[in-house]
Amino acid sequence: MTPPRRKRGGYFGSDPAAPKPLAVRLSHRVRFSEVDAMGVTWHGRYAQLFEQANEELGRLHGLGYADFYRERLQAPIVQLHVDYFAPTVLGEEVGIVGKLIWSEGARINVEYEIFKQNGVLAAAGFTVQMFVDESGAALLAIPPLLERCRKRWSAGEFGGM
Amino acid sequence: MTPPRRKRGGYFGSDPAAPKPLAVRLSHRVRFSEVDAMGVTWHGRYAQLFEQANEELGRLHGLGYADFYRERLQAPIVQLHVDYFAPTVLGEEVGIVGKLIWSEGARINVEYEIFKQNGVLAAAGFTVQMFVDESGAALLAIPPLLERCRKRWSAGEFGGM
Amino acid sequence: MTPPRRKRGGYFGSDPAAPKPLAVRLSHRVRFSEVDAMGVTWHGRYAQLFEQANEELGRLHGLGYADFYRERLQAPIVQLHVDYFAPTVLGEEVGIVGKLIWSEGARINVEYEIFKQNGVLAAAGFTVQMFVDESGAALLAIPPLLERCRKRWSAGEFGGM
Amino acid sequence: MTPPRRKRGGYFGSDPAAPKPLAVRLSHRVRFSEVDAMGVTWHGRYAQLFEQANEELGRLHGLGYADFYRERLQAPIVQLHVDYFAPTVLGEEVGIVGKLIWSEGARINVEYEIFKQNGVLAAAGFTVQMFVDESGAALLAIPPLLERCRKRWSAGEFGGM
Repeated sequence: MTPPRRKRGGYFGSDPAAPKPLAVRLSHRVRFSEVDAMGVTWHGRYAQLFEQANEELGRLHGLGYADFYRERLQAPIVQLHVDYFAPTVLGEEVGIVGKLIWSEGARINVEYEIFKQNGVLAAAGFTVQMFVDESGAALLAIPPLLERCRKRWSAGEFGGM
Repeated sequence: MTPPRRKRGGYFGSDPAAPKPLAVRLSHRVRFSEVDAMGVTWHGRYAQLFEQANEELGRLHGLGYADFYRERLQAPIVQLHVDYFAPTVLGEEVGIVGKLIWSEGARINVEYEIFKQNGVLAAAGFTVQMFVDESGAALLAIPPLLERCRKRWSAGEFGGM
Repeated sequence: MTPPRRKRGGYFGSDPAAPKPLAVRLSHRVRFSEVDAMGVTWHGRYAQLFEQANEELGRLHGLGYADFYRERLQAPIVQLHVDYFAPTVLGEEVGIVGKLIWSEGARINVEYEIFKQNGVLAAAGFTVQMFVDESGAALLAIPPLLERCRKRWSAGEFGGM
Repeated sequence: MTPPRRKRGGYFGSDPAAPKPLAVRLSHRVRFSEVDAMGVTWHGRYAQLFEQANEELGRLHGLGYADFYRERLQAPIVQLHVDYFAPTVLGEEVGIVGKLIWSEGARINVEYEIFKQNGVLAAAGFTVQMFVDESGAALLAIPPLLERCRKRWSAGEFGGM
């Protein structure tokens, strides 16, 4: 009855033979404008914490806004999911982990984890991005910049976290 | 491999004998501060659109912030999910539908739909809320205010949308 | 020593012979995501409340985003000022008043007032917008759409609030 | 007619004999959720950039949220002002400078400057904070924590930036 929560090992099923996820780790101090009347980070803010990791992943692996712009395509988010486990509070320095998950399709799958300053998992979630061209039409073929990223990824050219 | 999207009939499986969902419908004009560099509503903003409907549902059915405060409990969101189908643009008057879904547990399940001005479904999603007491400890028993809401709900005392 | 607060009669000095301000009045319910840890509207949110009135003024008087877009110009805000007098709280239905103030220059001057549900003035402030062309260069001449607006304004063609 | 912009040397007039401002410098990368349809940082976001510097100043000088909480007082912002000089864009690493300005009153005056990655001044502004007690009543006397801060400040105990 209840929507499924995270499976052991992540939201996306994975082929053991697939290249390992590409990961980034950032830190972010929870600011006054980010907490709610309970003094904890407002739940909707996690979309921005995820975004920070997503942008960094893009910058490092040729999937950033500048890359999309140059190739005249966009990669809108078509799915966002967050599971909340423990609150994060004003002033806390949270850890944000983003992991680009290997996929064969014309999509970008990213998983996220938010950690409290004491290391406890505060939240986890994922986003899925698809590609559209300038007119907004969905791209079903894999765009060249994603092909290039995956070629380097499977060749082990991106360093680990 | 892909996380499941909405089932026909909603995110939460439902017992045909359960009371019908309690629904609200609001409208919201997309403002400049809500759109991104593509001129479409930033994906993370949908958490706020959902929140508008969630607050209205709470106000109408005895599950609002004032009700929680009086009973010394909180109902944090433990799960948020959004599926995006079509972009909404600057200046557009979007429709927001929220539906409180019947559940027997100590939780509040709400489904949401965002409609474009032309009636096309722009996004859908859900939130799950659990209850905690003042110390932050999870409440596994169903709190009295939720019992009262469900008694009135099953008695048909709340009008339809 | 202290920066000047609002003068009697408004932030912008006015020529008694100038056309009267064009005003709009909106209402907005303070949402959970808009209040801070004290349960009052976060101070930075007032920029969005002002924006709501600013957009409505633009829509009504030929100075909206669609108008700017058609004439290939932009009207970025170059100055924002807010004076806070009383807090607004979660769930409160605030009133937002925006007034387009007559000016002879290549600029848009707007004053704002935010009222608590009980009618008490919660905040006041203003924005100043200048014009830039597509390349981002400042326009010192008055653009045609502003001329047209002022012609209708001084002819009394816009109804009062 | 036009509201005054920044005076040479800052928004707050200063006594040459007063202790020098206490300054912090932070950097912040402009994220996708922070830019508007023009691809530049939305004007209202600067309140958050200012807040980052304000919080850091508080943390370093005994005027942080934890300090206020311990002394059962609050320091709401009663005035916010921003002058915008040049846009900042998506992905840009902006510099944020905050300066606590000496004052003899029961208030906290802070000036801010936002710099583009290339060093150009993008915006400047200030906030004024007053003190209120738990009941929300204004404190006209200088609270002990502010006295302590100023004693250390005038004794030169805080290092420069």
